Amino acid sequence: MTPSELRQLCRSNQWTRPTSGVCDGFVQCNIVALPNCYAADFARFCAQNSQACPVLGQSNPGDTEIAALGHFDIRTDCPRYCVFEYGAMTQEVSDIKDLWADDWVFFALGCSFSFEDSLIDAGIRLRHIEEQKNVAMYNTNIACASAGIFSGNMVVSMRPLTVKETIRAIQICTRFPRVHGAPIHFGDPAQIGITALESPDYGEAVDIHEHEVPVFWACGVTPQRALMAAKVPLAITHSPGHMLVTDLRNAHLASL
Amino acid sequence: MTPSELRQLCRSNQWTRPTSGVCDGFVQCNIVALPNCYAADFARFCAQNSQACPVLGQSNPGDTEIAALGHFDIRTDCPRYCVFEYGAMTQEVSDIKDLWADDWVFFALGCSFSFEDSLIDAGIRLRHIEEQKNVAMYNTNIACASAGIFSGNMVVSMRPLTVKETIRAIQICTRFPRVHGAPIHFGDPAQIGITALESPDYGEAVDIHEHEVPVFWACGVTPQRALMAAKVPLAITHSPGHMLVTDLRNAHLASL
Repeated sequence: MTPSELRQLCRSNQWTRPTSGVCDGFVQCNIVALPNCYAADFARFCAQNSQACPVLGQSNPGDTEIAALGHFDIRTDCPRYCVFEYGAMTQEVSDIKDLWADDWVFFALGCSFSFEDSLIDAGIRLRHIEEQKNVAMYNTNIACASAGIFSGNMVVSMRPLTVKETIRAIQICTRFPRVHGAPIHFGDPAQIGITALESPDYGEAVDIHEHEVPVFWACGVTPQRALMAAKVPLAITHSPGHMLVTDLRNAHLASL
Repeated sequence: MTPSELRQLCRSNQWTRPTSGVCDGFVQCNIVALPNCYAADFARFCAQNSQACPVLGQSNPGDTEIAALGHFDIRTDCPRYCVFEYGAMTQEVSDIKDLWADDWVFFALGCSFSFEDSLIDAGIRLRHIEEQKNVAMYNTNIACASAGIFSGNMVVSMRPLTVKETIRAIQICTRFPRVHGAPIHFGDPAQIGITALESPDYGEAVDIHEHEVPVFWACGVTPQRALMAAKVPLAITHSPGHMLVTDLRNAHLASL
């Protein structure tokens, strides 16, 4: 199935499931949509915290696609969406045609699926994928640089790896600065304000085996959390795991 | 002082001191010289263990320079040399004119000085340099791939770094595959057969502070140890720390 074919299925509500493992090799994006009056602050928040919020595309006000990422309609082509009112998630919907307005803007942000592909290609096994779980994510004590109404701490995802795999993963992910880049921490979780690895704040816990270290990456939940904290009257994101699948290949995001 | 000027001083025995910190920015090399009959095996040992034995140059038999590295005379242009007979160091000398023969070959191997420059440029402080010590080095249980008479375990150097510095050091050193490349291990020394960090097998111990991890790089003592174990009747190396300073710039060794 091509990304375009998948998006057609989403558009006609024949695909409402998560997109993990679909359209192998193509970039999947986190989506944040909000009125244009908040766009400059949000763009600045992303620019200042680019490891957590790597912008792959920002639309013109009212545009429903970003041509560089493919021909799509942002109002229909994610499988599911979360609607936030004043910071609280109020509904999950399969399209946002009724909510979209001409003064809206959306951002497409890089997602860890892109670098996970490269890790797996290098023979690195990822426990949450093997255990068919959502990756474990944690709030940290690392403050993001704030921008207008947007602020908050960084959220990280965690993958347990051996030391050798950690070194290789740092090398591989360094090639992908536009999808979170290299890990930001490994080892002692307390150093970044995480008290209980067994109780992630989002996603599901995985076992850490002997001779493995927990490795932490900046995570795309960071902008979503900042969006909620800002209590914007109305904003929309993709549903977790239900990403926009673009026509861009993961390999195109490699810096070298 | 240019590398050429330093080598002139070495040639006339006016410079017999270590070369650490001299001719900033220029590549310094480990030297191994031995009769041509051993050269193919030694070259193969290096090729098979390139992270510990990165060959920057191999001379033609009898040649006393490698033009790509600069105009020099290998018999005189290191400040000091170690002479090994049947695996034992028998003397240290300031030139090897009397020992050199027309069937001899020498190898110039990359050295950690090259990547340390880049780490320091990135604001990473190296404790052994700050404490004006020789870097701590350890025998490991990591077996090298053997080649003819040459075999042995890898020797590593250790530098204590914070987690953040470790991630950055992995990125920086990955750019220098010809001078040992990325670290091969960090954290628990027992995983690579090191039992006592406070008692290095070569060099001097340094303190490891709270929130620092020991980071281990493949080390140029590895080929010297293999040379000794092979008990070649006569072979010569530079004296530790008394390197051949070449006309090549460290920046030229960066892979990108």
